[in-house]
Amino acid sequence: EDVVEAQEAVDHFKGEPMRHPALIRRADKPFNGETPPSLLTEKFHTPNDVFYVRNHLPVPQVDAKTYRLEIDGINLTETTFSLQDIKKFPKVSISATIQCGGNRRTEMGKDKVVAGLGWTGGAIGNAKWTGARLVDVLRSAGFKPEAYKHAKQLHVKFDGLDTDQSGECYGASVPLSYLLDGNFDAILAYEMNDKPIPIDHGFPVRIVLPGIVGARSVKWLSRVSISEEESQSPWQQRDYKVFSPSVSLETVDFSAAPPIMDTPVTSYICSHNNGDKVKKGPVKLQGYAFSGGGRGIVRVEISLDKGKTWNVARISDTANLESTKNWSWVLWEANVNIQANAEIWVKAVDSGYNQQPEDFNNIWNYRGLLSTAYHKIYLEAR
Amino acid sequence: EDVVEAQEAVDHFKGEPMRHPALIRRADKPFNGETPPSLLTEKFHTPNDVFYVRNHLPVPQVDAKTYRLEIDGINLTETTFSLQDIKKFPKVSISATIQCGGNRRTEMGKDKVVAGLGWTGGAIGNAKWTGARLVDVLRSAGFKPEAYKHAKQLHVKFDGLDTDQSGECYGASVPLSYLLDGNFDAILAYEMNDKPIPIDHGFPVRIVLPGIVGARSVKWLSRVSISEEESQSPWQQRDYKVFSPSVSLETVDFSAAPPIMDTPVTSYICSHNNGDKVKKGPVKLQGYAFSGGGRGIVRVEISLDKGKTWNVARISDTANLESTKNWSWVLWEANVNIQANAEIWVKAVDSGYNQQPEDFNNIWNYRGLLSTAYHKIYLEAR
Ligand SMILES: [Mo]
Ligand SMILES: [Mo]
Repeated sequence: EDVVEAQEAVDHFKGEPMRHPALIRRADKPFNGETPPSLLTEKFHTPNDVFYVRNHLPVPQVDAKTYRLEIDGINLTETTFSLQDIKKFPKVSISATIQCGGNRRTEMGKDKVVAGLGWTGGAIGNAKWTGARLVDVLRSAGFKPEAYKHAKQLHVKFDGLDTDQSGECYGASVPLSYLLDGNFDAILAYEMNDKPIPIDHGFPVRIVLPGIVGARSVKWLSRVSISEEESQSPWQQRDYKVFSPSVSLETVDFSAAPPIMDTPVTSYICSHNNGDKVKKGPVKLQGYAFSGGGRGIVRVEISLDKGKTWNVARISDTANLESTKNWSWVLWEANVNIQANAEIWVKAVDSGYNQQPEDFNNIWNYRGLLSTAYHKIYLEAR
Repeated sequence: EDVVEAQEAVDHFKGEPMRHPALIRRADKPFNGETPPSLLTEKFHTPNDVFYVRNHLPVPQVDAKTYRLEIDGINLTETTFSLQDIKKFPKVSISATIQCGGNRRTEMGKDKVVAGLGWTGGAIGNAKWTGARLVDVLRSAGFKPEAYKHAKQLHVKFDGLDTDQSGECYGASVPLSYLLDGNFDAILAYEMNDKPIPIDHGFPVRIVLPGIVGARSVKWLSRVSISEEESQSPWQQRDYKVFSPSVSLETVDFSAAPPIMDTPVTSYICSHNNGDKVKKGPVKLQGYAFSGGGRGIVRVEISLDKGKTWNVARISDTANLESTKNWSWVLWEANVNIQANAEIWVKAVDSGYNQQPEDFNNIWNYRGLLSTAYHKIYLEAR
């Protein structure tokens, strides 16, 4: 208990930035806040100040002038880059959705409790990310994709400047194979929606790994390394893995599942909440749909009769800029005619024709991750 | 009717090869036959003579000595290759599953009729495919991946030597972006399980596009072309597309859905049939699980109580040879204790944490394609 008191005496969170009052707080230290879902459909690119914030550790204070990024590892020459160095590489923009692995967790936890922050459907956002291509910067440190062709088991590790009280930093990694895919747009981003990246989102530089669960897009990036091992951080090794419904925290074998990378197809109704009262007659539903791995959304479907019949929703355009893959969500809308109390179901189909599961029972996992079943809300007609 | 008689007078199928009697015939002209599911779990690599056969047209007679492959299209020098020319490129082997888009169609058609061949779960097989890398051969015709980086809308077209009565050949295409992914192993295959490719499977050369629906792995390959348009064949433009449950052949807008490429995660019980009688006590279940896009299978789960509880099955090793991706199915087995009549459910989770839908109602489509819901069988205990 002496230790606890000593820790409390130093407030590791005293330098935290201001947050927009619209963000719904899910935790204070570290700060975690989600966007009210109704705001998400207002703009294709979520505004910076209401973009959901997922911090695992205190926000670090970083001086752009002294900031340095280190690159090292297998087949690379150890090289250090200032922010100005990074800005000298060709400036590239992608439109990409970042989603927390726990988005929509509260739905999975309704029937059987799950551990984790109580996100509804707002732990997701879509932004324009601008910066240097990771592969361009790596090439200047000697990276040659051909040199790794048969290296099945290599990883690209990312370290953040945010640290825990023992000095361990936030960390994540992805299989090196991602960087061997010429369609993958990993960006060392220094702008978010045409502004310098806000402090909460990784100022001055974060890695943006599109199509991959948000936890790998490390903020306040300090180091990129090609390694024979994955990041050994708890977020890589334990927290962002999905186990069988039969597994509990007591029985889990962490090595039995891979860390989450590409996320599965999901969809959400943002315009209405479960239990809302609506006037009888036409109702306009709005929401988002997203799939990881650069898979686009082929269609979004709505059912008012628990799946007996489905109608296809209208999809807004996606703005993919230079990408060959679909890194962004789609926003959708559907006009329905409500004449009596109704349960509304939404589901999406991605370009790999992946479908969402119908409910949460069979995908339940004790951490409440990848909670991607149909979104179902009940509307009361008045 | 005169025309019909004239056509029947010429038997376009008289040169067809012999087929193994174990293959279950689903159509005669053209020949289509599936592997009895119980044979599929005997070997990781399905033997050539019982590998399912999906022909869309009469089998062409091809002389290996006069065989030529033509390469042409955007940024390429038109080049012709003999079989000997193709064999001069580095010889590469991959282990890859090929699956018909209609595999398991009969399950989807149980409650509401679907159009297409009546496949059960045997329109799938896994083989070792050996040949030249498509990109190696293309490079010798001037292909440079960098030249296409910003070409979002290009396609690689494949023509077969099999033709309909008007002379139109079988054809398919895939987005060029596949070839920009250094992890993608497209093979101009001339061997199947270390033997020359059998006539029914494309002798002397077929393209093998792993992770992609079988219909794109064109057999008796005559031409590869980089083009601004997709293949205009009916199999690309109409037959292998998945529409909403609300769409029928009468209302379909063929442009509303993309052609199937990567296939979603599926699983199947091969050891038992629906309705089988088993002795009370331990029962060993066996089957396969597969996902497209090079996604591996993370786990296979079995439920004996309609999803209330799940148990993880044992997975056999996959032999991926040189690939960074998982192009092969897994075979799995599970010992269960049957004491009363039981409904057995199996589902799989892939490395993108994609899940199967629970039943067919909500993924129903009039062609019965991508019938990938949980496999459910009823066992009677004696
Ligand atoms: Mo997250
Ligand atoms: Mo097929």
